[in-house]
Formats: sequence, structure tokens, C-alpha cells
Amino acid sequence: MKKHNFNPGPSILPQYTIDGTAAAIKDFMGTGLSILEVSHRGKEFDAVMNDAVALVKEVLGVPEGYAVLFVGGGASTQFFHVPYNLLEKKAAYLKTGEWATKAAKEAELFGEVVIVASSEDKNFSYVPKGYVIPTDVDYFHITTNNTIYGTEIMTDLDSPVTLVADMSSDIFSRPVDVAKYGLIYAGAQKNLGPAGVTLVIVREDLLGKMTRKMPKMVDYRTHIKSNSMFNTPPVVNVYACMLTLQWLKNNGGLVAMDKVNAAKSELLYAEIDRNKCFVGTAAKEDRSRMNVCFVMAEGYKELEAEFISFASSKGLVGIKGHRSVGGFRASLYNALPLESVQALVDAMREFEASH
Amino acid sequence: MKKHNFNPGPSILPQYTIDGTAAAIKDFMGTGLSILEVSHRGKEFDAVMNDAVALVKEVLGVPEGYAVLFVGGGASTQFFHVPYNLLEKKAAYLKTGEWATKAAKEAELFGEVVIVASSEDKNFSYVPKGYVIPTDVDYFHITTNNTIYGTEIMTDLDSPVTLVADMSSDIFSRPVDVAKYGLIYAGAQKNLGPAGVTLVIVREDLLGKMTRKMPKMVDYRTHIKSNSMFNTPPVVNVYACMLTLQWLKNNGGLVAMDKVNAAKSELLYAEIDRNKCFVGTAAKEDRSRMNVCFVMAEGYKELEAEFISFASSKGLVGIKGHRSVGGFRASLYNALPLESVQALVDAMREFEASH
Repeated sequence: MKKHNFNPGPSILPQYTIDGTAAAIKDFMGTGLSILEVSHRGKEFDAVMNDAVALVKEVLGVPEGYAVLFVGGGASTQFFHVPYNLLEKKAAYLKTGEWATKAAKEAELFGEVVIVASSEDKNFSYVPKGYVIPTDVDYFHITTNNTIYGTEIMTDLDSPVTLVADMSSDIFSRPVDVAKYGLIYAGAQKNLGPAGVTLVIVREDLLGKMTRKMPKMVDYRTHIKSNSMFNTPPVVNVYACMLTLQWLKNNGGLVAMDKVNAAKSELLYAEIDRNKCFVGTAAKEDRSRMNVCFVMAEGYKELEAEFISFASSKGLVGIKGHRSVGGFRASLYNALPLESVQALVDAMREFEASH
Repeated sequence: MKKHNFNPGPSILPQYTIDGTAAAIKDFMGTGLSILEVSHRGKEFDAVMNDAVALVKEVLGVPEGYAVLFVGGGASTQFFHVPYNLLEKKAAYLKTGEWATKAAKEAELFGEVVIVASSEDKNFSYVPKGYVIPTDVDYFHITTNNTIYGTEIMTDLDSPVTLVADMSSDIFSRPVDVAKYGLIYAGAQKNLGPAGVTLVIVREDLLGKMTRKMPKMVDYRTHIKSNSMFNTPPVVNVYACMLTLQWLKNNGGLVAMDKVNAAKSELLYAEIDRNKCFVGTAAKEDRSRMNVCFVMAEGYKELEAEFISFASSKGLVGIKGHRSVGGFRASLYNALPLESVQALVDAMREFEASH
């Protein structure tokens, strides 16, 4: 049976990425060797790294003056690398969910942290508005999409100070005005590639101003100087990212993704709002297009396990909600086709009809 | 033409690991999904992580009281994680090569560093002996195998203080008495798996004694508590490691590896010592079994490029030496068969005969 992969991350990737990676594991670019056993210093992998960086710049429209890095570890590693590099005295954080909270917590080790606003009062079901970004801070940190709670900041904010964004779960899902950000980071495992590599985009003039001494691997300048090959990079992971970036480019880029992601999320939210059995958990104006969170409506609460099991029988995988929200979460990343969303909507209708 | 892969790292892996990883990228354990797109929280990957940890313990004979971790980043990341966790006041380092030097440099950010001995005077071509390990340090750090210079510490040292070892390039090549070490770390990309994940084995009672506050991802206790899944681990990389560990176990474990690695390195060193065209660069008593470094002998110096090209025509890949040593380096990791070493030896003989 065809599986519809709604996993929150690691999550669905284009078949192009999967097939290409499997092929390179058998034979990497005609070398007669597997990509798992070739030197990262060889000309073949050098070209892969260069292509991956160039494609990020092209697809995302990265302006001059920014460096694009592929580094090991995950976004959780960036939670402390960011303040290590940029927090001299004080930083401001927007507390919109679990990851934003963790990021702010790490920053406290390096300086004063101001939480400018929080949506914790309502279990992070909305994005705070009307707050004022302080001007006496080194940077303002946001998490553009909240994978767990299903809210998303869809606009590129105007910030009077350096704007830093964790875009792990919605990067490449729509066009972004990179010039508005000082630093963007994203764990690969949603719209980019397999887990184990993180994309960092940083405006170079922000670096090297810190009085703090940094470990080599923490200092972004180390990776800039060496084109992300100061040490052995996660070779196969970067290769898979490069393939996804090719796929993005060949499929209309971010303008096309934006359109499809709008259509997919509208289809599912419309059904949630129409269907008597289900109700959405996030404030309507802040609903994420990447992670759609919903629960059983009043009167149907006891049917949660039954719906999970029914959905599973239809090949719908990974829709169990995070324990912090409960219910269901359908993640609609770039590679998920509209037909998978339709399959979920059909299952919700069938379930409603039988109850 | 069959390729003989002498790459220094990333390097040759068992065909079992390559085939198994390619298969899992097509379909992971019958889930109908690629391992690139499954949740690390699913029961299938949970079993992979548990198996990988259990196999490390079994194959290496890890005693009670030690934790086995698979973490993101590389050994270069551990260069600063080790002192972050263990260096309160002072640490001692043995300076036997480039990686040892880099590790010591990172430790200087966290406390006083004593270099107990160095072989830098002779371009790291030997391992210092007769030094005294200070007793007033938090730990003594060694690099058991020097990938670049081709020397190796083949015995498990008796240390009066906690012994920390970077075993990136010779772990799993022979039995090791883990009880003699407080902490062992190893980037995967030699004898374990693809680049992008690092193995850490740490005696748990060493942790939690530091007054320094640590970022979550740096603190080894974070990863111990969460079975290496505090954040999304490098899923496919860990899977490939697990396959190599299965292969190790099914092929006689470290006693068998020890025997084959001895035979392979003896075959090649014997030829280097016999052949008029070549000469070894490392002190004989310190010769590495993993990385065999040699150069053209006096009178044949100008033939270096010619031999590289001749070797290449025979399918011998990755034998160019590191720029710090020049000449040639043949890396004979576990997965390299004896027949590949024989092919190199044959090429050296043929080259000698024609000059």
C-alpha cells in the first residue's frame, strides 16, 4: 500500500533525493566507489559542496555579503553557537514554543536574555503580536515555524537589531527576504535533507566583533574560511541536500513551493474547520502551513486512538500529535504531494460519516 | 576495473554496510519509507540506536559504568567538548601530530594545558617515550593513531590520571582494554561508518563534577539521559555504523581484525623496506597499522607523480600522502582486504623492476 508520510521530521523527501542518494551509495559519480567511502577532499565531493552552496544562494536569493555553511550537529547545536558568536551583552528572544524556549535557555549561558513576548500562557497556540523589539540588544531571535504547536511567522519581520531566525521547519517553503536577517539556521531534516547536517546563512560583517574566545568548531569564521570543510563534513547528508536543492530549482523554486504549500494547508484546514469530529489547536491567523495540529472535537474525544488506527489503515503515517499538544499533527513539507493531503481529508470525511 | 580504496577517511567500508544502507534508503525495515524520511522517535530507529550501542559494548568489551553515545559533529567537535566537560584546572596532552595539536589548542580555552611530550622536532615521525604523566591534572589526552604521520600507540597506557583517547582512526582495529580509559572518542569515518557521527565512550562517574555551566548539547549527561536522542541524531549515519558493527561481530570481532590488520601492514611495510624505490617515514617501532606513510627513496625522488599515476592505472585509489608528509599514504582500515594490499605491493614491485 502507498504510504503517505506526514512525519514531523525527519520527514518526507523528494523521490529524486532518495533515488539519487541510493544510487550514489552504490556508485558516486562514476568513481566506482560509494559516497560513503570517498574522501571529502576529492574533486567530486568538492563539486557537491560548491553546488549545494550555490543552489542555496540561487534558490533562496541570498544577497552578497552572506556566507552559506553546511555544518554538523543539529539546530540544537546552533542554539549555543549563535550566542557564542553574537551575544556580547544582551539578546532578545521571542518565546513561541519548545525550540524557542530551548534556544533562549542556551543563550543565558553567554549573557543577559530578554524574552520580549511569549505565548506560553495559551500553550504556544498563537504567535505574540504588538511587542517592541529592544534596541539595546545584540540580536533578536525568532523561531519562524513551531513544529510542535503548529504556528508560523509568515512574514519577514522588520527588526531594528540583527534578526536571527531558526527556520528549521519552514525554510524553502516560501520566498524569504534574506536581507532582513543577520543569521538564519535550519536543521536539514524537514525541507532539505536527512538529519545530521545544519544549514547556516550568516551576514559576514556580523562576525569577529566578539571579545569572547571561541572553540574553532563554534566560530562561524572557521567554516567560512574552509568552505564548510575545516573538518570532515557529513558527506552523504550534504549530498542528499544538494539533490533536494536541485529538485527545488527544477520544480519552480520557492514561488512554486509557496503556491503548493498554500493549497495543501488550505485544503486540510478547510476540512478541519468543516468536519464535526475535529478542531484545530492553533489561532487561525497564526496557523502553520508546515505542521497542521488538530484534536478531536468535543463529544468525540474518546475516538482519538480509533482515528489514528483508521488513518494508519489508509497508509497515513506519522500523524500522531506531539505529547505537548496531543491529538494529531500532519506535517505538509515541500515533498508531500497534494494527493497525500487529499488522502487524509478523505479519511477524515469517511471517519466523520461513520460516527 | 576493480578499485582498491586506500582513502584516509572517509574511507573504505564493508560491502555489507554499503549494500545495507542503500537498501534502507529504498525501504527501511519494511516500513515502505526511506530511512532518510522516518522519525527517529519511531520504534524501528529506536531499535537501531539500541542495537548500535549494544554492539559497541559487545564488540569492544565495554565494562559496566560506561556510557556509549553517538553524537553529531566530528572528532574536532570533541576537541572542545572534552575539556568543557572534564577540564576544571589543568590537563595534559601528548603532542603526536596535527590532531593532537588541535585538541590541545582547544583545551587552552578552558584551563591550563601541559604538553608532556612532543614529536614535533622530527615532523611527528615517532611517538615520544619515557615521559612522565603529571598527577596534578584532570586528565591526560592522547591520539592513539596519527592518520597524517602514520604513527600509532598500540598499547593501552597505564595512566595515574584519567586517560582520554582520540581513537578516530584506529578504533575497532584491535582489542582495547576500555577500563584503562576514562573517555574514548572517535569520528566514525574510518572503521565505523560514514562521516557525520562520532562515537563517545565515557565513564559516567567522571561527569557532573565541573563547576562550569555547559550548553545542553555539550554536556555528555544530556546525551546519556536521552540515549543519544536529545535532538534528532544523524539517522542514516548511525544506521550505517550499526551495520558495520554487525559485520565486525559476524567476522570474528576485534581478535580477527587484529590478526588481519597485522598481516596487511606487515606485508606492506616489508615491501617498503625491501623495495629500492621507496622508504618509510615513521620510526619502525611506532609504525601505524592503519596509515602506512612512505616516500620515494633517494635517487628516485622525481618519480613520485609517475608512481601515483601508475598506481592509479592499477585501480589503486587514495594513496597520495598528506601535504605535511608528502609521498604516499596507504590507509589499511578494517574493510580493506588483504588482496588490495597485495595489489599495491605488486604495483610497487612492477614499478621497481621497470626503473
